[in-house]
Amino acid sequence: MKILEDRILKDGQVLGHDVLKVDNFLNHQVDPMLMQQMGEEFHRLFKDEKITKILTVESSGIAPAVFAGLAFKVPVVFARKHKSVTLKDELYTSVVYSYTKKVSNHISISKKFLNSDDRVLIIDDFLANGQAVQGLVDIIKQADADLAGIGIVIEKTFQKGRELIDKEGIHVESLARIKAFEDGKVIFMDEANTINANN
Amino acid sequence: MKILEDRILKDGQVLGHDVLKVDNFLNHQVDPMLMQQMGEEFHRLFKDEKITKILTVESSGIAPAVFAGLAFKVPVVFARKHKSVTLKDELYTSVVYSYTKKVSNHISISKKFLNSDDRVLIIDDFLANGQAVQGLVDIIKQADADLAGIGIVIEKTFQKGRELIDKEGIHVESLARIKAFEDGKVIFMDEANTINANN
Repeated sequence: MKILEDRILKDGQVLGHDVLKVDNFLNHQVDPMLMQQMGEEFHRLFKDEKITKILTVESSGIAPAVFAGLAFKVPVVFARKHKSVTLKDELYTSVVYSYTKKVSNHISISKKFLNSDDRVLIIDDFLANGQAVQGLVDIIKQADADLAGIGIVIEKTFQKGRELIDKEGIHVESLARIKAFEDGKVIFMDEANTINANN
Repeated sequence: MKILEDRILKDGQVLGHDVLKVDNFLNHQVDPMLMQQMGEEFHRLFKDEKITKILTVESSGIAPAVFAGLAFKVPVVFARKHKSVTLKDELYTSVVYSYTKKVSNHISISKKFLNSDDRVLIIDDFLANGQAVQGLVDIIKQADADLAGIGIVIEKTFQKGRELIDKEGIHVESLARIKAFEDGKVIFMDEANTINANN
């Protein structure tokens, strides 16, 4: 998605060799006009999948997910993060390890909001090592719902998340796919829009 | 806002004498079409206030805030909750006590996303004891920004939050104002739309 790639080039900040900070339009300050365009793009990509529900994780997934929900006209459920889970009976729960924060969190959703009639589109802000997405996939399996696909805002193709998902034969679409960070610059998979190609 | 009051009557669940659970359209499962209408209503209520930024707190404030941001065409910043704050130099921070969870959290936002040129509209899902809103007001003061107003989805008028805010002369608008829970039923301030009035 060209408008997103351009925004990453303009406002993204590369930290070290594998972190991209996009806190001025996606995960701390949010650009709602961009989110709306992203929601419509997710709809274009998955519109034939008969989606009945969007699933994401708090907090950074919520903004892109609710605009996808608006485009599909379906409810959005955001999984909550907990250090531990006590009331397990009413919840679907999975464990997610965060490589960036080096902690494990439980994520959970109320059983009343996901069931075997649902066809679910997962939306998340980043796909890196794939832990959050795998937790959501696990929850969808527990609910015996159908996983229709996964929509990602920014994918880092050089980390292992995409490979893990591809192994399971899941339909994944990422609005921006980053192949590498070179000298603090972002290089996209789509050759036409890399920094180098613009030189 | 009649459509919101009707939804609360239909889907809200009164727990005990002061808790309203609205997790099937606002703070766990989210109805994006309703959120969009609420965003437009906030715009109608504050459109003359020259808003430059929307401020909220993760996670339940994000959905109404981003649709308000879309209606105003301004960026949305969501404060993050932490148990403790270490990197204070780059952050505006305040402490918020949650009466429902009985814990204190720090909330913080990056200094780069709020400054003295901003006219800020605070959006939050609930106004009960006013703790979250007061934390956000504190952060706006630290940034030397102007507080233009506070937009609340559901206000419980019988708790002390509204009074605290009114004392400071702040422009507050709530889309639904609940005056009491009686026998597990919701009674709104607006007499025309209480359960009793419908009987």
